Formats: sequence, C-alpha cells, structure tokens
Amino acid sequence: KSLFAELGIGTALFAPVDGPADFEAAVRACGTPAILKTRRQGYDGKGQARIGGAAGKGVSEIAAAWDSLGRVPAILEGRVSFVRELSILAVRGRGGESAFYPLVQNHHEGGILRTSIAPAPGVSASLQARAEAMASRVMERLAYVGVLAIEFFEVTCADGQPELLANEMACRVHNSGHWSIEGAECSQFENHVRAVLGLPLGSTRARGFSGMVNLIGSAPPMERLLAIPGAHVHWYGKEPRAGRKLGHVTVCGATEAERDAGLELVKRALALRAS
Amino acid sequence: KSLFAELGIGTALFAPVDGPADFEAAVRACGTPAILKTRRQGYDGKGQARIGGAAGKGVSEIAAAWDSLGRVPAILEGRVSFVRELSILAVRGRGGESAFYPLVQNHHEGGILRTSIAPAPGVSASLQARAEAMASRVMERLAYVGVLAIEFFEVTCADGQPELLANEMACRVHNSGHWSIEGAECSQFENHVRAVLGLPLGSTRARGFSGMVNLIGSAPPMERLLAIPGAHVHWYGKEPRAGRKLGHVTVCGATEAERDAGLELVKRALALRAS
Repeated sequence: KSLFAELGIGTALFAPVDGPADFEAAVRACGTPAILKTRRQGYDGKGQARIGGAAGKGVSEIAAAWDSLGRVPAILEGRVSFVRELSILAVRGRGGESAFYPLVQNHHEGGILRTSIAPAPGVSASLQARAEAMASRVMERLAYVGVLAIEFFEVTCADGQPELLANEMACRVHNSGHWSIEGAECSQFENHVRAVLGLPLGSTRARGFSGMVNLIGSAPPMERLLAIPGAHVHWYGKEPRAGRKLGHVTVCGATEAERDAGLELVKRALALRAS
Repeated sequence: KSLFAELGIGTALFAPVDGPADFEAAVRACGTPAILKTRRQGYDGKGQARIGGAAGKGVSEIAAAWDSLGRVPAILEGRVSFVRELSILAVRGRGGESAFYPLVQNHHEGGILRTSIAPAPGVSASLQARAEAMASRVMERLAYVGVLAIEFFEVTCADGQPELLANEMACRVHNSGHWSIEGAECSQFENHVRAVLGLPLGSTRARGFSGMVNLIGSAPPMERLLAIPGAHVHWYGKEPRAGRKLGHVTVCGATEAERDAGLELVKRALALRAS
C-alpha cells in the first residue's frame, strides 16, 4: 500500500496496526466499516477480519479482531464502495520489456475468488491504459521480472468517470489469470517462464471471450462439466476441504454470448451438485 | 488396406509382397511407378522404397527393394496422382459415441510430415461428411475406443469432383492432429484420454485457423520462434538427429490470412536457420 501511495497509485484509506497504540488513529484515518488484514501470508480471505464500526465501537472491534488474527503486524483498510473488481496481469522480461493482459472482471465471495471474466466487459481503452501504466510503475520500481497481478476496485468518480483503486498485488501468476491458459495467445504461466528465462515474451492477446469458475471445497460433477462444449476443466489433484481451491473451469467462446451461455451451464452444473 | 477394401473405402492399388513369387503379380496389379512398404513398424518414410518402374525393370527393382527392406512381409502400392494430402482425426468413446475434427491438409517431404493446415482450406461439407463416414465405418468395425487418424489422398474424379482415397491409418493420436492442442476446443490428446476413461468426449470444433510446422532434425532458432505472435512452440526434449521429429510449432489466427502470415514467419525463421 505504501508502495502504491509512493507511486501515485490510489488505494483505499489505510493505516498500519502494530499494536493497541495504533487502534484509535487507524479508526480515525480509515473510518468504518473497515477491514483488518495481517500484513503477511494472507490469501483467500485468510488473515482478515471485518470491522463493522457500530457507533463508537471501532476501537474495541479492532482490539478483538487483532487478537483473533494472532496480534501480528496488520493494516486497517477503509471500505470502498466499488462498482466491480478488476485485475490486471502484467509481465516484465529481463530486458525490461513488458506486456499486459486485458483487464479481468472478478467476483469474490467470502474473500475467495469465484469467477473471472476476460476480457472484462465494457472497459474503455483509457481505463486499460491506466491499469497498464500503474502496473508498469510498480514493475519498474521493483525491477520486477515475471508475471505480476494487481487487483483493483473500479469506483465511480464525481464526474461519473470510472477510476481504479489498487487493492492487492500478487508478485506471481494469479488465479484471476488462469483463463489465459486457453483464453490468451500465451498463458500467464508460459509468459512467467519466458520472462524468468530471458526469452521473448508471448502475445497477451485474448483469444475470444473467456470465463473462469473456481472449483472450491468439494469434487464437482466432473462428467457434467466435461460435457459442456468449450469448457476446459482443470483439477489440481488436491484433497477436498471446505474453502479450498481444488481446480477451475474455463469456458471459451467466439462471442460474449457464447461464453456467457457456457458459463451459465458451468454454474448450473456446480449449483445442482451443491443442492 | 484389406480392411479399407472390405469396408468399401477406396485406396491406391495394392498387392501383398511376401517373397519373390509375388513380384510379378504385384507389378501387374499395381503398375509402376509404385512404392514398396513393410507391413509393420513403418513410419516417417522408414520401411519404404520407391519403385521407379523403368520399362521392364519393375520386377528387378522390387527384388532389390525387398532386399533393402530386410526381406520382411511387404506391400506394393501403385502411385496415386493426388491433388493434396488430407487427414481426419476421429475419436470414439466407450459407449460408441464419436466425434470428428475438421479435415487437415498435410504436406510431406521425404516421407515425413512437414506441415499441417487446419481446417483444410476449401473442403466442402460433403467431402468432410465422406471422410467422417469412412472413419466411422473403420471405428465401428474395430469397436475402436480412442483417437484414430486416417490419411487420405484427395484425387479428382472424372466428373471433376474431389474424392478421397485412404492411404494410411494410425490407431492413436497423430502428428497431423497436434494443431488441436491450441487450435480446437478439446485436443486430440485430451479426447483420447476422455474416450479411454469413458468420460464425455470434448468438442472437436476448431478455434480459428491453425497451421503446424514440425521441427525436424536440429534445434530451431528458439528465440525467433517464440517472438512470433500466436506461435506455440512445443519442444519434446529429444536428442537432435537427422530426420527426427524434435518438436512442432502451431500458429493460430483469427483469420486464415493471420494464420498464413504467422506460418510464413515460422517457415522463414526455420529456413534462415538452415541456411
């Protein structure tokens, strides 16, 4: 967050929380509702606690939340009223050259990524360019080599224009880029390897329209998924466990309508299984 | 060949050659020029010898050829004057359901597949249907499960219409189907596994237009290949050796022109290397 701020990249309001002495200042800086996050090792909603912020209760809620997270260095973030979540996958090679995948639209539930749509619908060239410029600044500053993801909140400015606030960054390939295996000329995985090996970067262009659905918690109805035209099923071979990402399905279509139809079939197959 | 004949699938003229007693009858049956092939273990032009057929020399040429092939059971095939080489990849599941990839146009040199274009340009629906019907007959007859390839000669009938003569069959995934990794909804490899496991077959629909170039004999200029947009480089990790298939490159395009442009870049990269 400090890096984002230093690079002029907007974020939600935030303040460090290293101990009880910081509670009051953090609430003042961020307002409530807010979210307390550990500064290390957090993922999939782990290491996070919501601060509801009932009148005057902010400090006591942070105290309880900080206890529940194990009294480790944390950060308080003000809640952002966002239109949608977007992310950008970027890659930078050893020679400093870079490439960017189209912005992806993500949907989280319970802190876990559920679906990604790529390219994100209705993204203007200027919004894409702003996202790329932010990712560039970060990669340059870190002299980064490989694939990096930045998650954004899309918010609406006073003038009605969309703007991006950086939320999280992952210095690695990212779940919101898994669609690129089938949905882009060169996947985030191949591009990461190309970058690290000093090989030419591959094209990040989208091939048609993709939607990705994570397989979370339990084994899906595999045969139903495999029967959906254009669905690519990836199963990681992990032991099922509540909230665990066990695989994902990517649906590719030549048109958005075709992608949406396939995505609907995937969701229906998974919902039927759950019921 | 006998199976093809039994199923009413046209082939080049052919005759078995098990020993000197067969030489004369084989030449009479097939005419010359012709080609002598071992009946087992042949691939990539190995186990084949051309019979030029200079006037009256047919029998002595076969005798020499049969010696050179190791005096094993062989077949003589009459040469076909073909327009082009096509192949079909078909898959049949354990329940008898089947699916077919679009016909592929192949180019061989020295008995080795060099390039495949998929879908083959200018294939009518009826030609595709005829190829699928032939593959169906073969798979039904063999109660086949998995992916199977049939290579055809496209010839021109007396009425000017195209017809297919079956040349070779591969009861497995096939080099002329490698484009399907990126160029079809579900690759020949995934469909083979799906079939064998009794899972639903995946869609064999082409994704755009693909061209595949084999990497033969020596290491290619990898960086140049990787820099070609839309080129997918597969390197098998085999030791380079003259005439050995070491990998392949598939170029995908949203249009035929885009595919052709990429293919040209691949060929140029490989030719430059050779020079």
